[in-house]
Amino acid sequence: MSRLSLNQETVRQWSLPELAEGCAKAGVPGVGLWRAPVQEYGVGRAALLLRDAGLMVTSLCRGGFFTAADPAERKTALADNRLAVEEAAALGTDTLVLVSGGLPPGSKDLSGARERVADALAELGPYAAERGVRLAIEPLHPMYAADRCVVSTLNQALDLAERFPAEQVGVVVDTYHLWWDETVAAQIARAGAGGRIAAFQLADWVTPLPEGALLGRGQLGDGSVDLRWFREQLDAAGYTGPIEVEIFNPRLWARDGAEVLAEVAARYREHVL
Amino acid sequence: MSRLSLNQETVRQWSLPELAEGCAKAGVPGVGLWRAPVQEYGVGRAALLLRDAGLMVTSLCRGGFFTAADPAERKTALADNRLAVEEAAALGTDTLVLVSGGLPPGSKDLSGARERVADALAELGPYAAERGVRLAIEPLHPMYAADRCVVSTLNQALDLAERFPAEQVGVVVDTYHLWWDETVAAQIARAGAGGRIAAFQLADWVTPLPEGALLGRGQLGDGSVDLRWFREQLDAAGYTGPIEVEIFNPRLWARDGAEVLAEVAARYREHVL
Repeated sequence: MSRLSLNQETVRQWSLPELAEGCAKAGVPGVGLWRAPVQEYGVGRAALLLRDAGLMVTSLCRGGFFTAADPAERKTALADNRLAVEEAAALGTDTLVLVSGGLPPGSKDLSGARERVADALAELGPYAAERGVRLAIEPLHPMYAADRCVVSTLNQALDLAERFPAEQVGVVVDTYHLWWDETVAAQIARAGAGGRIAAFQLADWVTPLPEGALLGRGQLGDGSVDLRWFREQLDAAGYTGPIEVEIFNPRLWARDGAEVLAEVAARYREHVL
Repeated sequence: MSRLSLNQETVRQWSLPELAEGCAKAGVPGVGLWRAPVQEYGVGRAALLLRDAGLMVTSLCRGGFFTAADPAERKTALADNRLAVEEAAALGTDTLVLVSGGLPPGSKDLSGARERVADALAELGPYAAERGVRLAIEPLHPMYAADRCVVSTLNQALDLAERFPAEQVGVVVDTYHLWWDETVAAQIARAGAGGRIAAFQLADWVTPLPEGALLGRGQLGDGSVDLRWFREQLDAAGYTGPIEVEIFNPRLWARDGAEVLAEVAARYREHVL
Protein backbone atom coordinates (compact mmCIF):
# COMPACT_ATOMS: atom_id res chain seq x y z
CA MET A 1 0.00 0.00 0.00
CA SER A 2 3.03 2.26 0.21
CA ARG A 3 2.39 3.87 -3.19
CA LEU A 4 -1.40 4.14 -3.04
CA SER A 5 -2.94 7.60 -3.20
CA LEU A 6 -6.63 8.39 -3.05
CA ASN A 7 -7.78 11.24 -5.23
CA GLN A 8 -10.34 13.17 -3.24
CA GLU A 9 -12.86 13.19 -6.10
CA THR A 10 -13.16 9.42 -5.68
CA VAL A 11 -14.79 10.14 -2.32
CA ARG A 12 -16.37 13.49 -3.03
CA GLN A 13 -18.78 12.84 -0.15
CA TRP A 14 -15.88 13.37 2.27
CA SER A 15 -14.79 16.76 3.58
CA LEU A 16 -11.06 17.38 3.76
CA PRO A 17 -10.90 16.45 7.47
CA GLU A 18 -12.83 13.26 6.72
CA LEU A 19 -10.42 12.52 3.86
CA ALA A 20 -7.40 13.07 6.11
CA GLU A 21 -8.80 10.96 8.91
CA GLY A 22 -10.11 8.25 6.58
CA CYS A 23 -6.87 7.81 4.70
CA ALA A 24 -4.73 7.88 7.83
CA LYS A 25 -6.98 5.28 9.47
CA ALA A 26 -6.90 3.04 6.39
CA GLY A 27 -3.13 3.28 6.05
CA VAL A 28 -3.32 4.95 2.66
CA PRO A 29 -0.28 7.24 2.57
CA GLY A 30 -1.22 9.71 -0.19
CA VAL A 31 -4.04 11.91 -1.40
CA GLY A 32 -4.65 13.73 -4.68
CA LEU A 33 -6.41 17.06 -4.28
CA TRP A 34 -8.61 19.37 -6.33
CA ARG A 35 -8.36 23.11 -6.19
CA ALA A 36 -11.99 24.03 -5.48
CA PRO A 37 -12.49 22.04 -2.26
CA VAL A 38 -9.00 22.99 -1.07
CA GLN A 39 -9.66 26.69 -1.70
CA GLU A 40 -12.94 26.42 0.12
CA TYR A 41 -11.26 24.88 3.14
CA GLY A 42 -8.28 27.20 2.90
CA VAL A 43 -4.99 26.22 1.24
CA GLY A 44 -2.75 26.77 4.26
CA ARG A 45 -5.21 25.06 6.57
CA ALA A 46 -5.46 22.08 4.20
CA ALA A 47 -1.68 21.80 4.02
CA LEU A 48 -1.44 21.67 7.83
CA LEU A 49 -4.33 19.22 8.12
CA LEU A 50 -2.77 16.74 5.73
CA ARG A 51 0.73 17.15 7.13
CA ASP A 52 -0.57 16.53 10.63
CA ALA A 53 -2.31 13.39 9.38
CA GLY A 54 0.99 12.19 7.93
CA LEU A 55 -0.34 12.24 4.39
CA MET A 56 1.56 13.05 1.24
CA VAL A 57 -0.16 15.22 -1.37
CA THR A 58 0.62 13.40 -4.59
CA SER A 59 -0.93 15.88 -7.03
CA LEU A 60 -3.13 18.91 -7.35
CA CYS A 61 -5.84 19.03 -10.03
CA ARG A 62 -5.97 21.18 -12.02
CA GLY A 63 -4.40 23.90 -14.00
CA GLY A 64 -4.76 24.26 -17.71
CA PHE A 65 -7.58 25.48 -19.95
CA PHE A 66 -5.02 27.20 -22.11
CA THR A 67 -6.79 27.15 -25.46
CA ALA A 68 -8.69 30.42 -25.52
CA ALA A 69 -7.71 32.58 -28.48
CA ASP A 70 -8.94 35.79 -26.86
CA PRO A 71 -5.99 37.66 -25.26
CA ALA A 72 -7.92 38.73 -22.16
CA GLU A 73 -9.09 35.18 -21.55
CA ARG A 74 -5.56 33.89 -22.03
CA LYS A 75 -4.20 36.39 -19.56
CA THR A 76 -6.78 35.32 -16.99
CA ALA A 77 -5.98 31.66 -17.57
CA LEU A 78 -2.25 32.24 -17.10
CA ALA A 79 -2.82 34.21 -13.91
CA ASP A 80 -5.06 31.48 -12.56
CA ASN A 81 -2.43 28.89 -13.41
CA ARG A 82 0.25 30.82 -11.54
CA LEU A 83 -2.09 30.76 -8.58
CA ALA A 84 -2.51 27.00 -9.02
CA VAL A 85 1.28 26.64 -8.96
CA GLU A 86 1.42 28.58 -5.68
CA GLU A 87 -1.29 26.38 -4.22
CA ALA A 88 0.56 23.22 -5.26
CA ALA A 89 3.74 24.53 -3.65
CA ALA A 90 1.89 25.45 -0.47
CA LEU A 91 0.35 21.97 -0.30
CA GLY A 92 3.77 20.41 -0.67
CA THR A 93 3.12 18.58 -3.92
CA ASP A 94 5.47 18.72 -6.87
CA THR A 95 2.77 17.89 -9.42
CA LEU A 96 0.18 20.23 -10.90
CA VAL A 97 -2.09 18.30 -13.27
CA LEU A 98 -3.09 20.23 -16.40
CA VAL A 99 -6.24 19.72 -18.40
CA SER A 100 -5.34 21.58 -21.54
CA GLY A 101 -8.75 22.90 -22.59
CA GLY A 102 -10.96 22.23 -25.60
CA LEU A 103 -11.70 24.12 -28.77
CA PRO A 104 -12.82 27.73 -28.35
CA PRO A 105 -16.52 28.20 -29.28
CA GLY A 106 -16.99 27.89 -33.04
CA SER A 107 -13.40 26.84 -33.70
CA LYS A 108 -12.43 23.70 -35.60
CA ASP A 109 -8.70 24.32 -35.34
CA LEU A 110 -7.30 21.55 -33.16
CA SER A 111 -3.67 22.13 -34.07
CA GLY A 112 -3.96 25.85 -33.38
CA ALA A 113 -5.41 25.09 -29.96
CA ARG A 114 -2.59 22.66 -29.26
CA GLU A 115 -0.05 25.35 -30.12
CA ARG A 116 -1.65 27.69 -27.61
CA VAL A 117 -1.13 24.97 -24.99
CA ALA A 118 2.57 24.98 -25.89
CA ASP A 119 2.68 28.77 -25.60
CA ALA A 120 1.22 28.60 -22.11
CA LEU A 121 3.67 25.89 -21.05
CA ALA A 122 6.53 28.11 -22.19
CA GLU A 123 5.27 30.91 -19.97
CA LEU A 124 4.43 28.79 -16.94
CA GLY A 125 7.14 26.14 -16.94
CA PRO A 126 9.97 28.20 -15.46
CA TYR A 127 7.60 29.86 -12.98
CA ALA A 128 6.47 26.46 -11.74
CA ALA A 129 9.93 24.89 -11.63
CA GLU A 130 11.26 27.79 -9.54
CA ARG A 131 8.64 26.86 -6.97
CA GLY A 132 9.42 23.14 -7.05
CA VAL A 133 6.30 22.27 -9.03
CA ARG A 134 6.15 20.42 -12.32
CA LEU A 135 3.38 20.96 -14.86
CA ALA A 136 1.87 17.57 -15.72
CA ILE A 137 0.05 17.44 -19.05
CA GLU A 138 -2.80 14.96 -18.84
CA PRO A 139 -3.94 13.54 -22.15
CA LEU A 140 -7.70 13.05 -21.88
CA HIS A 141 -9.71 10.48 -23.79
CA PRO A 142 -10.47 11.61 -27.38
CA MET A 143 -14.14 11.90 -26.48
CA TYR A 144 -13.19 15.10 -24.61
CA ALA A 145 -11.18 16.66 -27.45
CA ALA A 146 -13.83 19.25 -28.37
CA ASP A 147 -14.90 20.56 -25.01
CA ARG A 148 -12.23 19.75 -22.48
CA CYS A 149 -8.80 18.73 -23.71
CA VAL A 150 -7.26 18.92 -27.17
CA VAL A 151 -4.41 16.69 -25.99
CA SER A 152 -5.81 13.20 -26.55
CA THR A 153 -2.88 10.78 -26.56
CA LEU A 154 0.28 10.18 -24.59
CA ASN A 155 2.18 10.74 -27.82
CA GLN A 156 0.74 14.26 -28.15
CA ALA A 157 1.38 15.00 -24.49
CA LEU A 158 5.01 13.95 -24.85
CA ASP A 159 5.44 15.91 -28.06
CA LEU A 160 4.38 18.96 -26.06
CA ALA A 161 6.32 18.15 -22.90
CA GLU A 162 9.56 17.40 -24.68
CA ARG A 163 9.78 20.96 -25.97
CA PHE A 164 10.60 21.92 -22.37
CA PRO A 165 13.02 20.73 -19.68
CA ALA A 166 11.85 17.58 -17.87
CA GLU A 167 11.88 19.37 -14.50
CA GLN A 168 9.34 21.86 -15.87
CA VAL A 169 6.87 19.72 -17.81
CA GLY A 170 5.87 16.08 -17.42
CA VAL A 171 2.85 13.94 -18.33
CA VAL A 172 0.10 12.07 -16.53
CA VAL A 173 -0.57 8.45 -17.41
CA ASP A 174 -4.24 7.80 -16.63
CA THR A 175 -5.57 4.38 -17.53
CA TYR A 176 -9.10 5.63 -18.16
CA HIS A 177 -7.94 7.94 -20.93
CA LEU A 178 -5.27 5.81 -22.56
CA TRP A 179 -6.30 2.17 -22.28
CA TRP A 180 -7.62 1.83 -25.86
CA ASP A 181 -4.41 3.07 -27.55
CA GLU A 182 -2.22 0.31 -28.91
CA THR A 183 0.79 2.63 -28.96
CA VAL A 184 0.57 3.35 -25.24
CA ALA A 185 3.23 0.84 -24.16
CA ALA A 186 5.79 2.45 -26.44
CA GLN A 187 4.78 5.91 -25.26
CA ILE A 188 5.04 4.93 -21.58
CA ALA A 189 8.54 3.66 -22.27
CA ARG A 190 9.36 6.94 -24.02
CA ALA A 191 7.97 8.92 -21.10
CA GLY A 192 9.98 6.89 -18.62
CA ALA A 193 13.21 7.16 -20.57
CA GLY A 194 12.84 10.94 -20.65
CA GLY A 195 11.97 11.24 -16.98
CA ARG A 196 8.57 12.65 -17.91
CA ILE A 197 6.15 10.56 -15.85
CA ALA A 198 4.74 12.98 -13.31
CA ALA A 199 1.73 10.96 -12.22
CA PHE A 200 0.05 7.60 -12.67
CA GLN A 201 -3.71 7.55 -12.19
CA LEU A 202 -6.13 4.65 -12.22
CA ALA A 203 -9.77 4.22 -13.13
CA ASP A 204 -11.51 1.46 -15.02
CA TRP A 205 -13.52 1.83 -18.25
CA VAL A 206 -17.16 0.80 -17.91
CA THR A 207 -20.11 1.16 -20.26
CA PRO A 208 -22.61 2.51 -21.05
CA LEU A 209 -21.27 6.03 -20.80
CA PRO A 210 -23.55 8.42 -18.91
CA GLU A 211 -24.89 11.60 -20.50
CA GLY A 212 -22.01 14.04 -20.84
CA ALA A 213 -19.50 11.17 -20.46
CA LEU A 214 -17.86 12.74 -17.41
CA LEU A 215 -19.01 10.69 -14.44
CA GLY A 216 -18.86 7.18 -15.81
CA ARG A 217 -15.52 5.96 -14.54
CA GLY A 218 -15.46 2.48 -13.11
CA GLN A 219 -14.15 1.07 -9.84
CA LEU A 220 -10.87 -0.81 -10.35
CA GLY A 221 -11.62 -4.24 -11.74
CA ASP A 222 -15.15 -3.47 -12.89
CA GLY A 223 -14.26 -2.70 -16.49
CA SER A 224 -12.13 -3.34 -19.55
CA VAL A 225 -8.76 -1.98 -18.50
CA ASP A 226 -5.91 -4.34 -17.76
CA LEU A 227 -4.69 -2.30 -14.79
CA ARG A 228 -1.91 -4.67 -13.83
CA TRP A 229 -0.53 -4.54 -17.36
CA PHE A 230 -0.41 -0.76 -17.07
CA ARG A 231 1.37 -0.90 -13.71
CA GLU A 232 3.90 -3.31 -15.20
CA GLN A 233 4.53 -0.94 -18.11
CA LEU A 234 5.13 1.88 -15.61
CA ASP A 235 7.46 -0.38 -13.62
CA ALA A 236 9.41 -1.22 -16.75
CA ALA A 237 9.63 2.48 -17.56
CA GLY A 238 11.30 3.06 -14.20
CA TYR A 239 8.40 4.85 -12.52
CA THR A 240 8.40 4.36 -8.76
CA GLY A 241 6.09 7.19 -7.68
CA PRO A 242 2.57 7.25 -6.29
CA ILE A 243 -0.32 5.38 -7.85
CA GLU A 244 -3.40 7.53 -7.56
CA VAL A 245 -6.95 6.26 -7.81
CA GLU A 246 -9.25 8.83 -9.38
CA ILE A 247 -12.77 7.62 -10.08
CA PHE A 248 -15.61 10.05 -10.80
CA ASN A 249 -18.76 8.07 -10.19
CA PRO A 250 -21.97 9.11 -8.41
CA ARG A 251 -22.51 5.51 -7.33
CA LEU A 252 -19.34 5.69 -5.25
CA TRP A 253 -20.29 9.11 -3.90
CA ALA A 254 -23.62 7.77 -2.66
CA ARG A 255 -21.88 5.25 -0.40
CA ASP A 256 -20.04 5.51 2.88
CA GLY A 257 -16.60 6.97 2.19
CA ALA A 258 -14.70 4.51 4.38
CA GLU A 259 -16.42 1.63 2.65
CA VAL A 260 -15.45 3.03 -0.75
CA LEU A 261 -11.85 3.48 0.35
CA ALA A 262 -11.70 -0.06 1.70
CA GLU A 263 -13.03 -1.31 -1.62
CA VAL A 264 -10.48 0.78 -3.53
CA ALA A 265 -7.67 -0.67 -1.42
CA ALA A 266 -8.92 -4.23 -1.91
CA ARG A 267 -9.31 -3.77 -5.65
CA TYR A 268 -5.86 -2.18 -5.82
CA ARG A 269 -4.36 -5.28 -4.21
CA GLU A 270 -6.34 -7.60 -6.45
CA HIS A 271 -6.00 -5.83 -9.82
CA VAL A 272 -2.93 -3.62 -9.66
CA LEU A 273 -0.21 -5.04 -7.38
CA MET B 1 -24.10 16.85 -55.75
CA SER B 2 -22.82 14.05 -57.96
CA ARG B 3 -20.96 12.32 -55.11
CA LEU B 4 -23.45 12.81 -52.31
CA SER B 5 -24.97 9.74 -50.71
CA LEU B 6 -27.52 9.70 -47.93
CA ASN B 7 -27.15 6.96 -45.40
CA GLN B 8 -30.62 5.76 -44.54
CA GLU B 9 -30.02 5.97 -40.78
CA THR B 10 -29.77 9.75 -41.17
CA VAL B 11 -33.50 9.67 -42.04
CA ARG B 12 -34.59 6.66 -40.07
CA GLN B 13 -38.14 8.03 -40.17
CA TRP B 14 -38.28 7.15 -43.87
CA SER B 15 -39.29 3.77 -45.23
CA LEU B 16 -37.22 2.43 -48.11
CA PRO B 17 -39.76 3.64 -50.72
CA GLU B 18 -39.75 7.07 -49.07
CA LEU B 19 -35.96 7.06 -49.13
CA ALA B 20 -35.89 6.12 -52.81
CA GLU B 21 -38.46 8.73 -53.75
CA GLY B 22 -36.99 11.42 -51.53
CA CYS B 23 -33.44 11.03 -52.79
CA ALA B 24 -34.52 10.83 -56.43
CA LYS B 25 -36.64 13.95 -56.03
CA ALA B 26 -33.81 15.84 -54.32
CA GLY B 27 -31.27 14.85 -56.95
CA VAL B 28 -29.13 12.93 -54.46
CA PRO B 29 -27.63 10.08 -56.47
CA GLY B 30 -26.61 7.61 -53.76
CA VAL B 31 -27.87 5.88 -50.65
CA GLY B 32 -26.12 3.96 -47.90
CA LEU B 33 -28.17 1.09 -46.49
CA TRP B 34 -28.43 -0.90 -43.29
CA ARG B 35 -29.12 -4.60 -43.21
CA ALA B 36 -32.08 -4.72 -40.83
CA PRO B 37 -34.44 -2.37 -42.71
CA VAL B 38 -33.37 -3.90 -46.03
CA GLN B 39 -34.03 -7.43 -44.78
CA GLU B 40 -37.40 -6.35 -43.48
CA TYR B 41 -38.35 -4.91 -46.85
CA GLY B 42 -36.78 -7.77 -48.76
CA VAL B 43 -33.29 -7.63 -50.26
CA GLY B 44 -34.30 -8.32 -53.86
CA ARG B 45 -37.26 -5.98 -53.65
CA ALA B 46 -35.03 -3.23 -52.22
CA ALA B 47 -32.48 -3.72 -54.98
CA LEU B 48 -35.20 -3.28 -57.62
CA LEU B 49 -36.74 -0.29 -55.87
CA LEU B 50 -33.45 1.59 -55.73
CA ARG B 51 -32.42 0.63 -59.26
CA ASP B 52 -35.77 1.82 -60.59
CA ALA B 53 -35.28 5.11 -58.74
CA GLY B 54 -31.89 5.50 -60.43
CA LEU B 55 -30.03 5.38 -57.14
CA MET B 56 -26.61 3.92 -56.49
CA VAL B 57 -26.14 1.90 -53.29
CA THR B 58 -22.84 3.23 -51.98
CA SER B 59 -22.45 0.90 -49.00
CA LEU B 60 -24.17 -1.67 -46.83
CA CYS B 61 -23.83 -1.49 -43.06
CA ARG B 62 -22.80 -3.70 -41.45
CA GLY B 63 -20.89 -6.87 -41.15
CA GLY B 64 -18.35 -7.51 -38.46
CA PHE B 65 -18.63 -8.35 -34.76
CA PHE B 66 -15.74 -10.71 -35.14
CA THR B 67 -14.28 -10.62 -31.67
CA ALA B 68 -16.08 -13.46 -29.86
CA ALA B 69 -13.64 -16.02 -28.49
CA ASP B 70 -16.27 -18.76 -28.30
CA PRO B 71 -16.01 -21.04 -31.37
CA ALA B 72 -19.77 -21.40 -31.82
CA GLU B 73 -20.26 -17.65 -31.67
CA ARG B 74 -17.45 -17.13 -34.15
CA LYS B 75 -18.99 -19.62 -36.54
CA THR B 76 -22.33 -17.84 -36.34
CA ALA B 77 -20.68 -14.47 -36.92
CA LEU B 78 -18.84 -15.72 -39.99
CA ALA B 79 -22.00 -17.24 -41.42
CA ASP B 80 -23.87 -14.00 -40.86
CA ASN B 81 -21.10 -12.07 -42.55
CA ARG B 82 -21.23 -14.32 -45.59
CA LEU B 83 -24.92 -13.53 -45.74
CA ALA B 84 -24.11 -9.82 -45.50
CA VAL B 85 -21.74 -10.21 -48.44
CA GLU B 86 -24.51 -11.83 -50.47
CA GLU B 87 -26.88 -9.01 -49.56
CA ALA B 88 -24.33 -6.39 -50.59
CA ALA B 89 -23.82 -8.14 -53.90
CA ALA B 90 -27.57 -8.38 -54.46
CA LEU B 91 -27.97 -4.68 -53.73
CA GLY B 92 -25.24 -3.86 -56.24
CA THR B 93 -22.83 -2.26 -53.83
CA ASP B 94 -19.14 -3.13 -53.69
CA THR B 95 -18.73 -2.00 -50.08
CA LEU B 96 -19.67 -3.92 -46.94
CA VAL B 97 -18.89 -1.81 -43.89
CA LEU B 98 -17.53 -3.77 -40.94
CA VAL B 99 -17.85 -2.83 -37.30
CA SER B 100 -15.28 -5.12 -35.79
CA GLY B 101 -16.85 -5.83 -32.40
CA GLY B 102 -15.81 -5.01 -28.86
CA LEU B 103 -14.22 -7.01 -26.08
CA PRO B 104 -15.94 -10.27 -25.17
CA PRO B 105 -17.62 -10.10 -21.72
CA GLY B 106 -14.99 -10.05 -18.98
CA SER B 107 -12.07 -9.78 -21.36
CA LYS B 108 -9.40 -7.08 -21.17
CA ASP B 109 -7.42 -8.41 -24.12
CA LEU B 110 -7.66 -5.77 -26.83
CA SER B 111 -4.83 -7.12 -28.94
CA GLY B 112 -6.27 -10.64 -28.83
CA ALA B 113 -9.62 -9.29 -29.99
CA ARG B 114 -7.91 -7.42 -32.82
CA GLU B 115 -6.21 -10.63 -33.92
CA ARG B 116 -9.58 -12.38 -34.12
CA VAL B 117 -10.72 -9.59 -36.45
CA ALA B 118 -7.74 -10.40 -38.67
CA ASP B 119 -8.63 -14.09 -38.59
CA ALA B 120 -12.16 -13.31 -39.75
CA LEU B 121 -10.91 -11.06 -42.54
CA ALA B 122 -8.70 -13.89 -43.77
CA GLU B 123 -11.72 -16.17 -43.98
CA LEU B 124 -14.15 -13.68 -45.50
CA GLY B 125 -11.93 -11.61 -47.79
CA PRO B 126 -11.71 -14.06 -50.71
CA TYR B 127 -15.38 -14.97 -50.34
CA ALA B 128 -16.36 -11.30 -50.60
CA ALA B 129 -13.98 -10.45 -53.45
CA GLU B 130 -15.33 -13.34 -55.52
CA ARG B 131 -18.74 -11.69 -55.27
CA GLY B 132 -17.46 -8.22 -56.16
CA VAL B 133 -17.70 -6.96 -52.59
CA ARG B 134 -14.92 -5.41 -50.55
CA LEU B 135 -14.82 -5.62 -46.76
CA ALA B 136 -14.44 -2.11 -45.38
CA ILE B 137 -13.01 -1.91 -41.87
CA GLU B 138 -14.46 1.08 -40.08
CA PRO B 139 -12.37 2.39 -37.22
CA LEU B 140 -14.80 3.64 -34.57
CA HIS B 141 -14.08 6.37 -32.05
CA PRO B 142 -12.05 5.09 -29.07
CA MET B 143 -15.08 5.61 -26.83
CA TYR B 144 -16.53 2.47 -28.47
CA ALA B 145 -13.44 0.29 -28.00
CA ALA B 146 -14.89 -1.79 -25.17
CA ASP B 147 -18.37 -2.56 -26.39
CA ARG B 148 -18.47 -2.07 -30.13
CA CYS B 149 -15.22 -1.86 -32.04
CA VAL B 150 -11.67 -2.67 -30.96
CA VAL B 151 -10.36 -0.94 -34.08
CA SER B 152 -10.11 2.69 -32.99
CA THR B 153 -7.81 4.48 -35.43
CA LEU B 154 -7.23 4.60 -39.16
CA ASN B 155 -3.70 3.40 -38.46
CA GLN B 156 -5.05 0.23 -36.84
CA ALA B 157 -7.57 -0.30 -39.61
CA LEU B 158 -4.84 -0.03 -42.24
CA ASP B 159 -2.52 -2.31 -40.30
CA LEU B 160 -5.30 -4.89 -40.51
CA ALA B 161 -6.34 -4.20 -44.09
CA GLU B 162 -2.83 -4.28 -45.48
CA ARG B 163 -2.42 -7.90 -44.47
CA PHE B 164 -4.83 -8.69 -47.32
CA PRO B 165 -5.16 -7.74 -50.99
CA ALA B 166 -6.63 -4.27 -51.57
CA GLU B 167 -9.52 -5.71 -53.57
CA GLN B 168 -10.53 -7.78 -50.54
CA VAL B 169 -10.17 -5.38 -47.63
CA GLY B 170 -10.38 -1.60 -47.46
CA VAL B 171 -11.14 1.00 -44.80
CA VAL B 172 -13.84 3.54 -44.02
CA VAL B 173 -12.87 7.13 -43.29
CA ASP B 174 -15.61 8.57 -41.06
CA THR B 175 -15.07 12.09 -39.80
CA TYR B 176 -17.02 11.50 -36.59
CA HIS B 177 -14.66 8.76 -35.49
CA LEU B 178 -11.35 10.17 -36.66
CA TRP B 179 -11.49 13.96 -36.39
CA TRP B 180 -9.52 14.21 -33.12
CA ASP B 181 -6.49 12.20 -34.35
CA GLU B 182 -3.55 14.35 -35.38
CA THR B 183 -2.11 11.49 -37.43
CA VAL B 184 -5.22 11.17 -39.60
CA ALA B 185 -3.90 13.19 -42.55
CA ALA B 186 -0.88 10.91 -42.87
CA GLN B 187 -3.10 7.84 -42.54
CA ILE B 188 -5.54 9.07 -45.21
CA ALA B 189 -2.57 9.56 -47.54
CA ARG B 190 -1.39 6.04 -46.72
CA ALA B 191 -4.86 4.66 -47.36
CA GLY B 192 -5.11 6.45 -50.68
CA ALA B 193 -1.67 5.36 -51.85
CA GLY B 194 -2.58 1.77 -51.16
CA GLY B 195 -5.99 1.96 -52.83
CA ARG B 196 -7.65 1.19 -49.52
CA ILE B 197 -10.30 3.90 -49.19
CA ALA B 198 -13.58 2.03 -49.55
CA ALA B 199 -15.89 4.71 -48.15
CA PHE B 200 -15.91 8.27 -46.89
CA GLN B 201 -18.59 9.12 -44.35
CA LEU B 202 -19.51 12.42 -42.76
CA ALA B 203 -20.99 13.47 -39.46
CA ASP B 204 -20.08 16.33 -37.17
CA TRP B 205 -18.96 16.08 -33.54
CA VAL B 206 -21.27 17.83 -31.09
CA THR B 207 -21.39 17.83 -27.31
CA PRO B 208 -22.60 16.96 -24.77
CA LEU B 209 -22.65 13.28 -25.62
CA PRO B 210 -25.96 11.57 -24.89
CA GLU B 211 -26.21 8.57 -22.56
CA GLY B 212 -24.66 5.59 -24.30
CA ALA B 213 -22.84 7.94 -26.72
CA LEU B 214 -24.46 6.36 -29.77
CA LEU B 215 -27.00 8.85 -30.99
CA GLY B 216 -25.19 12.14 -30.55
CA ARG B 217 -23.82 12.79 -34.03
CA GLY B 218 -24.20 16.30 -35.33
CA GLN B 219 -25.59 17.72 -38.55
CA LEU B 220 -22.81 18.87 -40.88
CA GLY B 221 -21.53 22.24 -39.74
CA ASP B 222 -23.00 22.07 -36.25
CA GLY B 223 -19.87 20.83 -34.53
CA SER B 224 -16.10 20.74 -34.23
CA VAL B 225 -15.07 18.84 -37.35
CA ASP B 226 -13.39 20.64 -40.22
CA LEU B 227 -15.30 18.68 -42.86
CA ARG B 228 -13.84 20.54 -45.82
CA TRP B 229 -10.33 19.81 -44.58
CA PHE B 230 -11.22 16.12 -44.49
CA ARG B 231 -12.63 16.22 -48.03
CA GLU B 232 -9.47 17.93 -49.23
CA GLN B 233 -7.34 15.22 -47.60
CA LEU B 234 -9.40 12.58 -49.38
CA ASP B 235 -9.03 14.50 -52.66
CA ALA B 236 -5.28 14.67 -52.20
CA ALA B 237 -5.25 10.94 -51.50
CA GLY B 238 -6.90 10.34 -54.86
CA TYR B 239 -10.31 9.32 -53.58
CA THR B 240 -13.08 10.13 -56.05
CA GLY B 241 -15.89 7.93 -54.71
CA PRO B 242 -19.14 8.69 -52.95
CA ILE B 243 -19.37 10.96 -49.91
CA GLU B 244 -21.92 9.50 -47.57
CA VAL B 245 -23.68 11.41 -44.83
CA GLU B 246 -24.42 9.21 -41.83
CA ILE B 247 -25.85 11.02 -38.82
CA PHE B 248 -27.53 9.15 -35.97
CA ASN B 249 -29.56 11.76 -34.17
CA PRO B 250 -33.10 11.56 -32.77
CA ARG B 251 -33.55 15.28 -33.39
CA LEU B 252 -33.20 14.65 -37.12
CA TRP B 253 -35.49 11.64 -36.94
CA ALA B 254 -38.23 13.73 -35.34
CA ARG B 255 -38.37 16.04 -38.36
CA ASP B 256 -39.78 15.71 -41.86
CA GLY B 257 -37.41 13.53 -43.89
CA ALA B 258 -37.42 15.77 -46.96
CA GLU B 259 -36.59 18.77 -44.82
CA VAL B 260 -33.68 16.89 -43.22
CA LEU B 261 -32.38 15.84 -46.63
CA ALA B 262 -32.62 19.40 -47.94
CA GLU B 263 -30.67 20.58 -44.92
CA VAL B 264 -28.05 17.85 -45.42
CA ALA B 265 -27.62 18.90 -49.06
CA ALA B 266 -27.32 22.59 -48.14
CA ARG B 267 -24.81 21.86 -45.37
CA TYR B 268 -22.87 19.62 -47.72
CA ARG B 269 -22.55 22.50 -50.20
CA GLU B 270 -21.60 24.94 -47.46
CA HIS B 271 -19.19 22.85 -45.39
CA VAL B 272 -17.85 20.09 -47.61
CA LEU B 273 -17.62 21.14 -51.26
